[in-house]
Amino acid sequence: MARDEFKVAVVGATGAVGALMVKVLEERNFPVGEIKLLASARSIGKTLGFRGRQIAVEELVKDSFKGIHLALFSAGSAVSRAFAPVAAQSGSIVVDNSSAWRMDPEVPLVVPEVNGNAAMFHRGIIANPNCSTIQMVVALKPIYDAVGIKRIVVTTFQAVSGTGKRAIEELQAQVADIMRGNETVRQVYPHQIAFNCFPHIGAFLDNGFSEEEMKMVNETRKIFDDHEIRVCATTVRIPVVYGHSESINIETVKKISPEEVRELLKAAPGVKVIDDPSNAGYPVPLDAAGTDDTFVGRIRTDPSVENGLVMWVVADNVRKGAATNAVQIAELLLDSGRL
Amino acid sequence: MARDEFKVAVVGATGAVGALMVKVLEERNFPVGEIKLLASARSIGKTLGFRGRQIAVEELVKDSFKGIHLALFSAGSAVSRAFAPVAAQSGSIVVDNSSAWRMDPEVPLVVPEVNGNAAMFHRGIIANPNCSTIQMVVALKPIYDAVGIKRIVVTTFQAVSGTGKRAIEELQAQVADIMRGNETVRQVYPHQIAFNCFPHIGAFLDNGFSEEEMKMVNETRKIFDDHEIRVCATTVRIPVVYGHSESINIETVKKISPEEVRELLKAAPGVKVIDDPSNAGYPVPLDAAGTDDTFVGRIRTDPSVENGLVMWVVADNVRKGAATNAVQIAELLLDSGRL
Repeated sequence: MARDEFKVAVVGATGAVGALMVKVLEERNFPVGEIKLLASARSIGKTLGFRGRQIAVEELVKDSFKGIHLALFSAGSAVSRAFAPVAAQSGSIVVDNSSAWRMDPEVPLVVPEVNGNAAMFHRGIIANPNCSTIQMVVALKPIYDAVGIKRIVVTTFQAVSGTGKRAIEELQAQVADIMRGNETVRQVYPHQIAFNCFPHIGAFLDNGFSEEEMKMVNETRKIFDDHEIRVCATTVRIPVVYGHSESINIETVKKISPEEVRELLKAAPGVKVIDDPSNAGYPVPLDAAGTDDTFVGRIRTDPSVENGLVMWVVADNVRKGAATNAVQIAELLLDSGRL
Repeated sequence: MARDEFKVAVVGATGAVGALMVKVLEERNFPVGEIKLLASARSIGKTLGFRGRQIAVEELVKDSFKGIHLALFSAGSAVSRAFAPVAAQSGSIVVDNSSAWRMDPEVPLVVPEVNGNAAMFHRGIIANPNCSTIQMVVALKPIYDAVGIKRIVVTTFQAVSGTGKRAIEELQAQVADIMRGNETVRQVYPHQIAFNCFPHIGAFLDNGFSEEEMKMVNETRKIFDDHEIRVCATTVRIPVVYGHSESINIETVKKISPEEVRELLKAAPGVKVIDDPSNAGYPVPLDAAGTDDTFVGRIRTDPSVENGLVMWVVADNVRKGAATNAVQIAELLLDSGRL
């Protein structure tokens, strides 16, 4: 097959991540022969630009995947549960950004820089991990490989774009209302997000952790293929539009210095080290927004525990944390001749 | 002395914390007979309200403290280094909100709910701890006393009011500029703070930690009078105006359940437990703003370590984290007949 003859479907094309998947396919020159934009019936009539043409959005139905080689899903778990198997059975390879299939033992959960090889063993569906997990494992994998990691304690600073377009609009509307002296309106979040923050991402489980926090535990174990690694997460929403930040404390098996970590990470795929704090050099979400890399800084020894390290990791949650990682999985399949 | 005859000076009265000290003295009915508002020469001409009267700001000079019983300082370290000893030698008791004297072995560092007795041994100067330390030790002291704490890992979400009035104005101006589509201006912070965050509070030291992070380490040890307790902090500025939040992982000496911690904290002075996450019940800075308590929620077992606990602690950084704590120290002296 000629490289430009792939038929690609994007499911949830009108959502924040879906629309970005279309953009990233174009930016990265993915060999798309034909693109199909799928969404629910209420998006019929909308169009999205792709390589200078306006493409009409089509309604997602069971027959949507005939002839489709690659289907990128980002329309929520319910849609993925219902339609990813349909697409796979039609012969499409599905890269699914929802949480629906991530912990299924038959579905690889893939971050190309970390466990790209796992993608080769798919049975039609490959899961894209949670945004906050992706950037953490990209930053930690080189350290994990070099000296082992026993325990991770992470606290996140997550952007509202992770919730979707309506949350971005809610933050903007609340800020505008406050500036005008009006009351704010809450529809998406249980608390005002403008000039506020809250440790609440996803529903809460019986153990007191949120779904988002347990994703970071369970997905990290699956991606590292290490069911002994101990992870504790606190995930927090802050009034930032794009870019998740993470404060990460780790305990390594063997000792490693901050200098060695910097050297390891400078050579690591998808990682950029910004670590010159005295000159205000560290990653910030505003600078990471719009980029595809994972940025690491504030690398220092944690003297409060044996073989402790602390660092600060930032990435664009809708790019590396979602759309870019999904397209990179497709590139991996392409490069290995599996697409 | 009749209880309303205390002569009180507030040094730095036109600053964010200084002005609030004046307000808190009034709110808490501190027996002020006469109040003296001191600031630098450029604040001459300003007035502040106290009990319905407008009080003129006076220039801080060496003679300012004659006849003053209590001097509350919040004018930065340089002013405290220069003038706190002068005030003490004039017979005033100084409660100093700067970092100038905190680590001096002859100066007690006091959080009334935690180590109030230390205040009794002052030699004229009592130091008010750093805002992020105060709320952490208030929340942790009941646990420390009940089962011991070996290690604390904390990541903070700090409001711009901790930097002062100019930082609040910078955040508001940047937000307004962004809403109007203008470029933002940075004068106080090295990065835009609107819709952004950065792990940079205070200057950076050779060990890679910031001054703010090391304050949390060193002040906690001094307040708990425990030089073995291990603390690792990452301190982060976020676009919130009032209220610091903290994600805290601890390792206790003896095991304790989240239920037992909740009961302990419900009975603890200055602490309010808000821990009903399924109904979005947890502390948030917007709700803590304007109050004098320390709020604790998201209390859960950290299964990644032996005797691990995680919690979320929020307080108004300029009240409990600064002005209120200073006035509470004065109340302690008053109640023990030492003022």
